[in-house]
Amino acid sequence: MAVETNQMRKFLNDPAAVVKESLKGLAAAHGDLLRYDVANQIIVRKDSPKKGKVALISGGGSGHEPLHGGFVGLGMLDAAAPGEVFTSPVPGQMLAATKAVDGGAGVVHIVKNYTGDVLNFKLAAEDAADEGIKVTTVVIDDDVAVQDSLYTAGRRGVGATVLAEKIAGAAAEGGADLAKVTDTIKRVNARARSFGVALSSCVPPASGKAIFDLPEGQIELGVGIHGEPGRRRAPLGSASEVVDIMVEAVISDLKPKHGSKVLAFVNGMGGTPLLELYLIYGEVDEKLRKAGIEPVRNLVGSYITSLEMAGASLTVLELDDDLIRLWDAPVHTAALRWGV
Amino acid sequence: MAVETNQMRKFLNDPAAVVKESLKGLAAAHGDLLRYDVANQIIVRKDSPKKGKVALISGGGSGHEPLHGGFVGLGMLDAAAPGEVFTSPVPGQMLAATKAVDGGAGVVHIVKNYTGDVLNFKLAAEDAADEGIKVTTVVIDDDVAVQDSLYTAGRRGVGATVLAEKIAGAAAEGGADLAKVTDTIKRVNARARSFGVALSSCVPPASGKAIFDLPEGQIELGVGIHGEPGRRRAPLGSASEVVDIMVEAVISDLKPKHGSKVLAFVNGMGGTPLLELYLIYGEVDEKLRKAGIEPVRNLVGSYITSLEMAGASLTVLELDDDLIRLWDAPVHTAALRWGV
Repeated sequence: MAVETNQMRKFLNDPAAVVKESLKGLAAAHGDLLRYDVANQIIVRKDSPKKGKVALISGGGSGHEPLHGGFVGLGMLDAAAPGEVFTSPVPGQMLAATKAVDGGAGVVHIVKNYTGDVLNFKLAAEDAADEGIKVTTVVIDDDVAVQDSLYTAGRRGVGATVLAEKIAGAAAEGGADLAKVTDTIKRVNARARSFGVALSSCVPPASGKAIFDLPEGQIELGVGIHGEPGRRRAPLGSASEVVDIMVEAVISDLKPKHGSKVLAFVNGMGGTPLLELYLIYGEVDEKLRKAGIEPVRNLVGSYITSLEMAGASLTVLELDDDLIRLWDAPVHTAALRWGV
Repeated sequence: MAVETNQMRKFLNDPAAVVKESLKGLAAAHGDLLRYDVANQIIVRKDSPKKGKVALISGGGSGHEPLHGGFVGLGMLDAAAPGEVFTSPVPGQMLAATKAVDGGAGVVHIVKNYTGDVLNFKLAAEDAADEGIKVTTVVIDDDVAVQDSLYTAGRRGVGATVLAEKIAGAAAEGGADLAKVTDTIKRVNARARSFGVALSSCVPPASGKAIFDLPEGQIELGVGIHGEPGRRRAPLGSASEVVDIMVEAVISDLKPKHGSKVLAFVNGMGGTPLLELYLIYGEVDEKLRKAGIEPVRNLVGSYITSLEMAGASLTVLELDDDLIRLWDAPVHTAALRWGV
């Protein structure tokens, strides 16, 4: 019954142009927030560069939308460098993004821990430094599922990236300096843990083939956002059983203090509808409270996806008053907006 | 290759409890906005009833999330009455919702045109009137695909429902009276047209069976949100070709004046990722402008869905200054938020 995962049910013109065409549409829809630099394949905040403001950029393979282009705007990212689907952007994209947003106060590179991304961001940071731009880099590695993975030395970077971009973006918008913004991202990464599960594979447009094979009735526990294998494959249990595994994986690693206030982020992988994501959130909320942890903020929706993969991930971020204040601060991007 | 559509890849406990468990999670995540009345299976705005404010309620089968529970909050709905998946709520739910939100200024029922919904809302409105509550009803019927359908006499109600709830909700929040709010919904419905297409079927949790069969490489043109047949089935063309059909269907029926300002709403059916929805938006924006129509507002995302169906719909709403002002007004719900 696994043939489903080899099916193409997509709106496409030229599969090789899907990223460019999607970015064009993003810019057409959100011209008030951002612009699409076609030559460099980067999305740049419309009012960039902002003199004196620390700028934040991120990037990585496409197919994880709204990450990262959907997070460019007030109080979040200044630019995003999208690669082809599930493929790192090239250093020239990160360098162009860095130069486009530098307002003299420095630029932070937020990098999900995948070997290609880390290497290419490093090369771009060196080139930017040669041109006199102050650059710091924070690598996000919040995924507790596996120590090393198909495309990663060390832990993978997943859901904490969204939270770090929002929270550090608010710090930068509020006038924090380069060291402070950099430290804020590190704090979010240090206090956040994630664990994802998949109920189906997904099909990159260029190949038209599923990236892995997952029969019906099976679940991949600890899956990566490119379908990388997790801890194990098991028969699909009830939602409550699956959430038990997710919560245990995250909490046993994060080890929050009893009574901790947390942000609970239930993320859809792209093909799991909101009906189910809220069902999962209900389970997560209940199980965290039973464990003596209080979810005082939450985010439920598909924010870091794997094309149309059916699945979900849980990210738990241990909060303090400063992080709560930064989370609540105004944000205006295509995918996250409040207070403005 | 159609076996995919008989697959269950869902997070579930008891399939019969999926709606109740999802609503519980919605309330746990958004307790600042709404409460879940378990006995009546309704979602009610937390600060309801608001004395002197016209209240708006809607409802219908579940499986279309975030519609309608995700639109309960400031500047949009006062309550939502969700039925089981793809099944009309019962009159008792609409009556309970009406009573819960009536602040003395009257209650508007926003009803998508499906036979069961129309009948059950009518019974509830009669019962509410018997209890002395002023109720008006507006039936939304914006889907140009077919004149009558599997569950509908006359056109089906789809994407315009989201826009009507937002715009009329702003009117009510701003103090408009019952006649004015009712008229605003009618104006939105009269000026909006929609057309949807499906690239896959979907699987209701209770049956575990696909609601229709759509082989790979085929597209259902004019599909309904419960998989009702559309105008015809065809080989899947390019995204540009599909959007040509969607735009032509909507515009030839709406007949907007040359130079009209419109809101273009590209809606995902649940299983189509944002990467593709923005690609579609890029095509829509370009084709509307070529036709002398100016999209001055837009909404891109999965707001009225059919579980995990792969597909998309286009809704075009012809705007005037009053509708633009109401669209831009603050809204704070689980699924739509700005200005607050």
